[in-house]
Amino acid sequence: LGTVRAGQKQREVTGALITIGDEILLGEISNENATYIASNLRNKGFRLHSIITIGDQEGEIIDVLCRYTSRSDFLLVTGGLGSTEDDRTIASVSRAFGVSLTSNNDYRKRLQEEVAQRGLSWSAELDKLTMMPETSIKIGRGMAGFMLEHKNIPCYFLPGVPWEMQQLLDEQVVPDLERRFPIRPVYVKQIIRIQGLPESSIANRLQQMDLPDDRIDVSYLPQGNENWVTVLVTAATKGEAAALLADTRARIMSRIGPEHISGQDDDTLEKVIGRQLREKNWKMAAAESCTGGRLSMKITAVPGASDYFERAFITYSNGAKVEMLEVPEMKLQEFGAVSAPVAQAMAEGARKQAKVQVALAITGVAGPSGGTLDKPIGTVFLACATGSSTRVEKHLFHGTRDLIQEQSAQAALVLLWRTLSR
Amino acid sequence: LGTVRAGQKQREVTGALITIGDEILLGEISNENATYIASNLRNKGFRLHSIITIGDQEGEIIDVLCRYTSRSDFLLVTGGLGSTEDDRTIASVSRAFGVSLTSNNDYRKRLQEEVAQRGLSWSAELDKLTMMPETSIKIGRGMAGFMLEHKNIPCYFLPGVPWEMQQLLDEQVVPDLERRFPIRPVYVKQIIRIQGLPESSIANRLQQMDLPDDRIDVSYLPQGNENWVTVLVTAATKGEAAALLADTRARIMSRIGPEHISGQDDDTLEKVIGRQLREKNWKMAAAESCTGGRLSMKITAVPGASDYFERAFITYSNGAKVEMLEVPEMKLQEFGAVSAPVAQAMAEGARKQAKVQVALAITGVAGPSGGTLDKPIGTVFLACATGSSTRVEKHLFHGTRDLIQEQSAQAALVLLWRTLSR
Repeated sequence: LGTVRAGQKQREVTGALITIGDEILLGEISNENATYIASNLRNKGFRLHSIITIGDQEGEIIDVLCRYTSRSDFLLVTGGLGSTEDDRTIASVSRAFGVSLTSNNDYRKRLQEEVAQRGLSWSAELDKLTMMPETSIKIGRGMAGFMLEHKNIPCYFLPGVPWEMQQLLDEQVVPDLERRFPIRPVYVKQIIRIQGLPESSIANRLQQMDLPDDRIDVSYLPQGNENWVTVLVTAATKGEAAALLADTRARIMSRIGPEHISGQDDDTLEKVIGRQLREKNWKMAAAESCTGGRLSMKITAVPGASDYFERAFITYSNGAKVEMLEVPEMKLQEFGAVSAPVAQAMAEGARKQAKVQVALAITGVAGPSGGTLDKPIGTVFLACATGSSTRVEKHLFHGTRDLIQEQSAQAALVLLWRTLSR
Repeated sequence: LGTVRAGQKQREVTGALITIGDEILLGEISNENATYIASNLRNKGFRLHSIITIGDQEGEIIDVLCRYTSRSDFLLVTGGLGSTEDDRTIASVSRAFGVSLTSNNDYRKRLQEEVAQRGLSWSAELDKLTMMPETSIKIGRGMAGFMLEHKNIPCYFLPGVPWEMQQLLDEQVVPDLERRFPIRPVYVKQIIRIQGLPESSIANRLQQMDLPDDRIDVSYLPQGNENWVTVLVTAATKGEAAALLADTRARIMSRIGPEHISGQDDDTLEKVIGRQLREKNWKMAAAESCTGGRLSMKITAVPGASDYFERAFITYSNGAKVEMLEVPEMKLQEFGAVSAPVAQAMAEGARKQAKVQVALAITGVAGPSGGTLDKPIGTVFLACATGSSTRVEKHLFHGTRDLIQEQSAQAALVLLWRTLSR
């Protein structure tokens, strides 16, 4: 991870996120809510200065609420709004902000209707769900959630259930923040996806790049086999941000070399390959051994892949390689299943059997056993066959079985992308 | 998410984790370091009471360091130990704890050797890397990291790079904590994996369960298609914990019904199926349409899967279904590719072609397009063929393409598991 950075930015609108719940503190789940909130706020021109995760202890919640309302433009709290004894958020808000609690009539009615529809009876726990600070405004209809102002700071309390939290954030919190803070920096971010260039080369190529001014951040981040260069622009207007981004992007592309750049933002290699195949009006097939379907899964994860993905052969056994792909038994005996000739025969066999224009093949040793001196764990042969030629590559990957399988599938995508790019 | 819980536990050894860095605050990455640290500490009998993420601002770091040393048994800090201007941790420690900084000779020598080996020259930035509080002890040899005591609280400062952090945590921090706090509760955790039972049924079955005492927590957590019931036991000794766990587990199993329980802890369905196939000395094959390789990938993710996984047919096109699996064209025309007869023909065809004892097939509409009134998006047919019979199931899944593909593959695993369990 590296950063090419420069100076100070204009006044930002910053807030704190408090996530309440034991699962994160116990390491049972990651704080994915925080990631969602942070990145969505950032895209709208807001920024978190702190993320605090605490348990369901009232004293702790009160302490954190008091501390962070005095140093934030806004406050977001998720979790602890349920109906059980463990959920202490409402009681803590009442004590921290000195507000009394009252039952929200609209929400109460709604819950009563639901309960009646299901033929259940009303309970003290449901009563607790409807309690909210007097000064608060209910947000969200079918779920917990409210907003109140404390010392002029808007404080949003959202449920911890991810889809409920996300809906309230997108539909209620962000629009309210946008209304409250109309003047704020415009952030624009672009990810440039780089293939086949190690991190150190990227660092070298970007090191001598001087940024025109302090509104631009350029950083690079390895993502498995891919490397990302991220451009973050902070500007006063959308137009200014777009112009700065376009200029920076062009400068990066000329330094990195366009032949290494496969796409931007969420243009995964699979999507780019799909577009390339559509443009050529080609269909593809795959033959996988050590990756066991991972390559095909990646390609078919893209909507509409059936337009260009014809079939795949998961030839885990030698028998399958012979019967499904007509790999000559002699080649298997002479060179072994993990070899360049067999990878080539697999790709060519897949292409022929599926009657398609292009086919990819993968054969290798994913481990944790099966390695030899000659072909250690991580040895992988890739082949890409078209009507005019078959290109074969040998790789040596490191790491767990999962990592080796993942890197193999990714490298096969890069091989196909390069083949289709010519 | 539900919890069946009871009372108070014995005195715990608790600490705070402070992670320093902007990527998490900007939502670019999730705080996976926190998840690793929390779960590893928990397994060793320690517990985090707070996780705080802040940026590289000195004032903020000082504030958090002072606050959390006064309320913790230990403190862990990750990140901000690099050599750039942005890395403010060391300077903050010096000011927060009132200790002066000095260059660590051992670490300096080591870095100098490295620099010499690479033919580079020494720099001010490298100098900065060697600076540490006078009262600190260097931990880790080839990387940043140190420990110091402040007000008798051990404070560990680790690099933010995950593999470096993990190595120091496992090899240095946890053993040191174990030495310092020999008397602490023993935690034991077990995940019970439940198949084919909705969350509400699990809640009902567990609701009437009274826990013998406050040393036991039982909670349930949906995990995609699977549901987990988690038992957490806190006891004074390992023996006591084991006995409590065994008893609770037996009670849960009798309430849930053993026929719904596929395994525990990291016994995924794929691993259980692997063991079942080995025991029967059976081999399997798969035929996938809408899942495009996802089922095969899951099965072959298990080390040694080549012992029982023979091959798979990713028959994305109708032509592939006819040519690879001998699905009768008439059936495709009469019932459509997404139908019970075609699923059955796919499974039986795969079994025959691969000459194996059991084969699974999946055909469905993963979306986002391709749905009809008759067969809306999410309609999926599964089939499992053995020598004696073929079982076919129809499902209707909801969500994105990715979710539908994932649920289809998971449901196929459940079908195979049930078939092999008879």
